[in-house]
Amino acid sequence: MGFIPTAVHHENIAGMEVVLANGDVVRTGQYAMTTSPTAHLTKLSFGPTIDGLFLQSNLGIVTKMGIYLTPQPQSYMSCTFDMPEFEDVATIVDVFGEMRRNGTLPAMVYVFHLNEWAALFGKRSDWWKGEGPIPSWRTKEMQKELDVGNWSVKFGLYGPTSIIQAQYAEVQRVVTEKAPRGRLQQSLFSGEDGGLLEAISVPQPHGGIRVGVPSMWSIPMVNFYNVREDSIGAHGAYSPIVPLEGKVLLDWVKAAKQVYESQGFDLLCDFFMHERHAVFVCMLCFDKTSSEQRVGVEKIFQALFKEGSKRGFAKYRAHIKHMGMLVRLNPFPCCHRKLEQVKY
Amino acid sequence: MGFIPTAVHHENIAGMEVVLANGDVVRTGQYAMTTSPTAHLTKLSFGPTIDGLFLQSNLGIVTKMGIYLTPQPQSYMSCTFDMPEFEDVATIVDVFGEMRRNGTLPAMVYVFHLNEWAALFGKRSDWWKGEGPIPSWRTKEMQKELDVGNWSVKFGLYGPTSIIQAQYAEVQRVVTEKAPRGRLQQSLFSGEDGGLLEAISVPQPHGGIRVGVPSMWSIPMVNFYNVREDSIGAHGAYSPIVPLEGKVLLDWVKAAKQVYESQGFDLLCDFFMHERHAVFVCMLCFDKTSSEQRVGVEKIFQALFKEGSKRGFAKYRAHIKHMGMLVRLNPFPCCHRKLEQVKY
Repeated sequence: MGFIPTAVHHENIAGMEVVLANGDVVRTGQYAMTTSPTAHLTKLSFGPTIDGLFLQSNLGIVTKMGIYLTPQPQSYMSCTFDMPEFEDVATIVDVFGEMRRNGTLPAMVYVFHLNEWAALFGKRSDWWKGEGPIPSWRTKEMQKELDVGNWSVKFGLYGPTSIIQAQYAEVQRVVTEKAPRGRLQQSLFSGEDGGLLEAISVPQPHGGIRVGVPSMWSIPMVNFYNVREDSIGAHGAYSPIVPLEGKVLLDWVKAAKQVYESQGFDLLCDFFMHERHAVFVCMLCFDKTSSEQRVGVEKIFQALFKEGSKRGFAKYRAHIKHMGMLVRLNPFPCCHRKLEQVKY
Repeated sequence: MGFIPTAVHHENIAGMEVVLANGDVVRTGQYAMTTSPTAHLTKLSFGPTIDGLFLQSNLGIVTKMGIYLTPQPQSYMSCTFDMPEFEDVATIVDVFGEMRRNGTLPAMVYVFHLNEWAALFGKRSDWWKGEGPIPSWRTKEMQKELDVGNWSVKFGLYGPTSIIQAQYAEVQRVVTEKAPRGRLQQSLFSGEDGGLLEAISVPQPHGGIRVGVPSMWSIPMVNFYNVREDSIGAHGAYSPIVPLEGKVLLDWVKAAKQVYESQGFDLLCDFFMHERHAVFVCMLCFDKTSSEQRVGVEKIFQALFKEGSKRGFAKYRAHIKHMGMLVRLNPFPCCHRKLEQVKY
């Protein structure tokens, strides 16, 4: 799960060489032809495709693999859009979802809540001296102090300058009409002398992972709830796959907010907008040295899981502690038998 | 394999319900959750992905499936680019290949040789009265009569009008610089009153399969070699996957031309340009009532297979008669054992 046009990494795999547990070597896709010049260039395969069995080296050890990379673009435009109110997330989902599907925004769109942004610049105790979750009047103040919305959208446009300028102009036209309360901003980065853009030449906060350069920029977030000098920040997450529908996502994020606040924590979330679904990350940051917080985040996880399962949501990833959890609340138990063995 | 943005159909599958031979029901992706609202919206799966096993109902009967569709666009631009010389195919591959990868041309680019176009408008005997393959001086005349190039490129731009206009302008800028001998043309179709475009409103030759409306437009091609009143046109094909590299593809098409002409046939081919590979279709049209032609196309198939295998190419599809053919000429036999059972 990444930020550049080839963001969904496993969808860019083009054939593999795999060593199975019994020592057999399996070569998928065009790798099955020893001399194929397209082994690493195409996802097309022979007959039934078995590549999926080996994702993340699941059922074999992948020793060779083709993978599509994002070519260096002529230009990259770093774009931000933010909206001031909590309920605006529904508008963001519907307006940007349509643009994800209709050719305006070819790459993933990333959305985060103000609290997550605040967590990058200070601990909760720096932002709020009171007891329990940050109240909404203080959130409003923080928005002003940080000069961001309640929700912020970040997306990148990559390619020939004239095309990404047209894409940006279309976004501007659409949000002016459909989300006039929002604020759109951009910064354009181009290669020198009409050449291609060097990713490392793009400064923060526009560069780093948004142009494919590994970075630890979001790590300070885990220290948000640290309470002592020798605190150790950590995090888990509950990360459901949610349909890209404003009403459904708003209903979900309202429920999530209540769950967080019931344990004295703050809503700490972001989501990745693909064409038709969002991968929604409920961050569960906590101070490892606080037994109260350790219990609190586990309670939050269980309650989020319950709320998500009620809505039919499944997780896209899970901590090893929660991998085995099935959808206990599902009123219509799944009829498949075989898959339960591999479902986590 | 289609012509619209969701052209590679199986890459748009989002979960399946499958009945296995023993009656078990397997539900993949989010379908594994009975109540999931994203079952048909995401390709994300639980653990190892097994969807590939069931493509084309291969190892089970698919009874339910999510599939991404191309949304109705605001506009569609039907674009053509042609170049006059046989060798120009190398330029086409390199110039359009780069635009397929850098964000200029998000959808598949289709290329065909003049002979295929001619086959849509008449039998070979209408175009050439002499013996054997059409000579190159006559080909030049046919180019003029049909007002096409030796090679023609057809591609569609789908989406907001302003963006596809920017994409077209970029193509124009690039071909003016890198393929100045070529000719670029476009026709724009937009929805009425700023609405979305109805696919069936687009006239031929711009509409039909290029906007997702099924059509039999290319069927007359099979009658190209018909020699009698009661002839029955038919076709096979040798369709290798070729790397998207001008030099390699030109070398291949030169070899293919020689093979066709060695049997008195004409080069009849087209190819589908994806980002990094082409699916190259050598059409083997013949008159079923002619024993000479039946033998001829089989000889052509065998010789093309030999030439392709020498270059490490594998077929993307095959007639049932040729499905079992392995790469006998491969000097380094493949080391996998398991896959040979499912390889066709």
